[in-house]
Amino acid sequence: MLLEAVYHRPRLNWSYAYNENTIHLRLRAKKGDLTEVYAWTGDKYAWDTTKELIPMSLFTSDEMFDYWECETVPPHRRLKYGFLLQKGSERIWMTESDFQTKRPENPEKLFEFPYINRSDIFTPPAWVKDAVFYQIFPERFANGDPSLDPENVQPWGGKPERDSFFGGDLQGVIDHLDHLSELGINAIYFTPVFAATTNHKYDTEDYMRIDPQFGDAKTLKKLVDVCHERGIRVLLDAVFNHAGKTFAPFIDVQEKGEASPYKDWFHINQFPLAFDQDIPSYDTFAFEPLMPKLNTENPEVKQYLLEVAEYWIKEVGIDGWRLDVANEVSHEFWREFRKVVKRANPDAYILGEIWHESAPWLEGDKFDAVMNYPFTSAVIDFFVFGNLDAEGFANSIGKQLSRYPLQASEVAFNLLDSHDTPRLLTLAKGDKKKQKLASLFQFTFMGTPCIYYGDEVGMDGGGDPDCRKCMEWDKDKQDLDLFEFYRRLIHIRASHPALRTGTLTFLEASRQGTKLAYERRLGDDILIVLVNTEETAQYFQLAVEERQWENVLTDAPLRAERGILSMKLPAFGYAVLKAVY
Amino acid sequence: MLLEAVYHRPRLNWSYAYNENTIHLRLRAKKGDLTEVYAWTGDKYAWDTTKELIPMSLFTSDEMFDYWECETVPPHRRLKYGFLLQKGSERIWMTESDFQTKRPENPEKLFEFPYINRSDIFTPPAWVKDAVFYQIFPERFANGDPSLDPENVQPWGGKPERDSFFGGDLQGVIDHLDHLSELGINAIYFTPVFAATTNHKYDTEDYMRIDPQFGDAKTLKKLVDVCHERGIRVLLDAVFNHAGKTFAPFIDVQEKGEASPYKDWFHINQFPLAFDQDIPSYDTFAFEPLMPKLNTENPEVKQYLLEVAEYWIKEVGIDGWRLDVANEVSHEFWREFRKVVKRANPDAYILGEIWHESAPWLEGDKFDAVMNYPFTSAVIDFFVFGNLDAEGFANSIGKQLSRYPLQASEVAFNLLDSHDTPRLLTLAKGDKKKQKLASLFQFTFMGTPCIYYGDEVGMDGGGDPDCRKCMEWDKDKQDLDLFEFYRRLIHIRASHPALRTGTLTFLEASRQGTKLAYERRLGDDILIVLVNTEETAQYFQLAVEERQWENVLTDAPLRAERGILSMKLPAFGYAVLKAVY
Repeated sequence: MLLEAVYHRPRLNWSYAYNENTIHLRLRAKKGDLTEVYAWTGDKYAWDTTKELIPMSLFTSDEMFDYWECETVPPHRRLKYGFLLQKGSERIWMTESDFQTKRPENPEKLFEFPYINRSDIFTPPAWVKDAVFYQIFPERFANGDPSLDPENVQPWGGKPERDSFFGGDLQGVIDHLDHLSELGINAIYFTPVFAATTNHKYDTEDYMRIDPQFGDAKTLKKLVDVCHERGIRVLLDAVFNHAGKTFAPFIDVQEKGEASPYKDWFHINQFPLAFDQDIPSYDTFAFEPLMPKLNTENPEVKQYLLEVAEYWIKEVGIDGWRLDVANEVSHEFWREFRKVVKRANPDAYILGEIWHESAPWLEGDKFDAVMNYPFTSAVIDFFVFGNLDAEGFANSIGKQLSRYPLQASEVAFNLLDSHDTPRLLTLAKGDKKKQKLASLFQFTFMGTPCIYYGDEVGMDGGGDPDCRKCMEWDKDKQDLDLFEFYRRLIHIRASHPALRTGTLTFLEASRQGTKLAYERRLGDDILIVLVNTEETAQYFQLAVEERQWENVLTDAPLRAERGILSMKLPAFGYAVLKAVY
Repeated sequence: MLLEAVYHRPRLNWSYAYNENTIHLRLRAKKGDLTEVYAWTGDKYAWDTTKELIPMSLFTSDEMFDYWECETVPPHRRLKYGFLLQKGSERIWMTESDFQTKRPENPEKLFEFPYINRSDIFTPPAWVKDAVFYQIFPERFANGDPSLDPENVQPWGGKPERDSFFGGDLQGVIDHLDHLSELGINAIYFTPVFAATTNHKYDTEDYMRIDPQFGDAKTLKKLVDVCHERGIRVLLDAVFNHAGKTFAPFIDVQEKGEASPYKDWFHINQFPLAFDQDIPSYDTFAFEPLMPKLNTENPEVKQYLLEVAEYWIKEVGIDGWRLDVANEVSHEFWREFRKVVKRANPDAYILGEIWHESAPWLEGDKFDAVMNYPFTSAVIDFFVFGNLDAEGFANSIGKQLSRYPLQASEVAFNLLDSHDTPRLLTLAKGDKKKQKLASLFQFTFMGTPCIYYGDEVGMDGGGDPDCRKCMEWDKDKQDLDLFEFYRRLIHIRASHPALRTGTLTFLEASRQGTKLAYERRLGDDILIVLVNTEETAQYFQLAVEERQWENVLTDAPLRAERGILSMKLPAFGYAVLKAVY
């Protein structure tokens, strides 16, 4: 037994309350090292009458480790626990302080989950598990009200430069909701809509006003209302890490320097404001002078921003906020933010922009989810670039699942591209077969898929600004086959709870492999997804328990013989099978 | 290289801001496996001009692992980082997602410390690092006002039973402050003083009233004032996990059942209140019917308790709160508690009662410290019971240091006994030599030592209620030699900053060893403590850099020859040496 590889520590992903009664425990061990693992649990004040050995199951793996898991409903909401590790006949007990060969006969030195307090339970809104998001960059989606166009507006469909304007607006979105309804999405994430100088609006000038090029609060209210009528939720982008250079308080600081009453609204390192080799004397987003960092520790700033957060929920009924550069703002601010937002709308969804591991933000007191870019990387590397083999891909997904409590994985915001990355189709060098495989995984995996506007009709584009082209509305130029593919994916996902919250087991994911097969299972809803990322046909032989299967894409029946499901997939082929009873 | 043993994960003890500019990074590896470790750091938005390889040093070890550490002051308060692991000529780079042989040339997949936000920095009050606490159980310390005695009061010094009363009170403490000043302590922690039915007062009847057997708010105010005049801070016990059975809201629930407006102040699992095999139908502390658990998620309860917390700080000027059964109350409650308390007194000390690993409570948003019972166990096991060897002891201490950010270790509440444990002298079977060695370690180690009332004059006592005997005030029965020993320990600690916040290095701590030697170092203040826990004399030979030394207990000079400091210690002997320049 490699005890150095064994890891458990209370909280985060290792021990957490899943709901008011249930605790999940997890333990890490060297891959393949342990044959059985048990949790040794009980109530600290009634150990002898409650002690229990609970078998743990292998719930995921990565390249170096296995992750074991169990769930338990302690009778008095309290839990003391250790672990029993077995490797064949070798048995070791793990306590909080050491490993030992004897069973701990009292709870004294065990780990502790002191009490399940409701207010500490991480509880994302229930609807998010079933959501399919669509991301809209408003300046480029549709021009519904040319009277709002800026003077320098360019013809729709032109090549986007950093400072181009094409006249997209909120009315344009309203006009095209049929497209979204037909596609089947039920939530929209809008990049910023508040007054700002740029086309992306990440340099906020006024948090309380819709950008006049986009419309006004009335238009937004109308948009939200018609979305809600269609069962579509609306998320806005909260850019609270920094403001814009034309934000009134910052203008005041630029004009009055140290004498400005707003000088503590920002992080000014030196007056007068200046630049030293392009580095501003005030903190900004990156080193971007346009975007002065807000001092969210200043109670006035905090109050202002929290009012903004509450205002748009109450005023126009939005369903949540996406938080720009969320990791650079204090944890303390986001805790207060969550309270304000959830008080205004208990069902609001709080989505942070964080590109790296995010466990500290996903403990229940800050965000409900983060933009899952590690997921993006793994999917692109395997399905698109082919520079990760099937085993490496399964390991990467396994590692991600191991890092978060289950309720976080259930609502992870799984995107394949965005306004900040090249488009999926461009990464795939225009190969729509690869785009489809990547998206198939996205829609058959746990978490909330998001489509970046236009991907569904075959839009391409490199890094910013090329990924921000105008939406293609000419049916002749839209890829309607691709649209139909996404529509079906969304429908299949909606029809099968297992695809949303079932367990995930990789059935085929070998070293240097280009075949992938995985099972999603929730009660009787059992599906197997098979993918061939090779340019040639490949055979699958999967050991399964169920006998009768049906291809949900073709309705063709399939039968497992002697516990083996055999299937041949053509180059870049795929199948989604469901067990039939 | 055993990569399975390598662990790092942002936050907690692994990466944290020590102050507004400084980040500490730590990495765990198999003991003895790595020869050099570096942090590979830079600013994510200016990687090429800021990238830097920072050597890490081995800061502590336990039985299985080494813990490496470095500190860095990033130019823009942001840090991307990975690690370079070396074992001889073998070099491996660690990123957030994997181990690799090539140096990561961009920060993309590295770990991230996004921004040092001041409000997220864990900042315990500065005075606590220099505090020496004295714990008083008021019913047993001194009877200063016999007019307050309960009817059933027993003669001072009698054998304590679970329900005995001896008449100790606040005036008694005021009367004996000379004893404490002479000893040299500068902080008192009082177990509860609010109205309650028991002698220990952990079953609060009224949080806004001093127990009439102890005095009233005026007496407490006077006590705090005279303590402050002497430079002694005062900590009270906040019993917020549960109230007492005579707490007015609970009386109301007992009387009116479900009709009581206070029914949601508690966790009532079933009406009418009843017992099933001694288990109450309402949640309690343990299964103690006297102590109904408070529903701190109820806004009314929260407001009430937060008012209590604020009231006593503002009204009588206490310097902080010790929180009873702190781990069973929600994190969310303690976060609000901290805000209220620090607003009332930014210098207030918040000390949680948690017996197990406490990292989740020591991130800066909840407590400043916890009662460090894992420290207690290790010290007792080595110095008193002798069932841990010197190596095991050093490992245990090393593990504890590895678990917390430095600022937490600097103010850990290091006690050797309390009202909840047998007394140190009784654990030592009356052997004061062992008591002294244990206390010597306590006072020469990082963290805040606490003396349980009477230990300093040789009081003994087994588990509760025996550890709660009346304080011995008869000089003839006091061990004045022991008192002098503690007085000197406190003086030496006060004279040497290294003993409070210096680094710790074990110089002698071998397997099956009964000799212990360790260095404490802060700049030029360098001390070595030597302890012999054996019944026979032992020789020490310690490799040191400094040449001239002085025994601070005897003033005797000592000289290292050829880099070796030689010393013979008698049975249960000890020495504290300081480097002389």
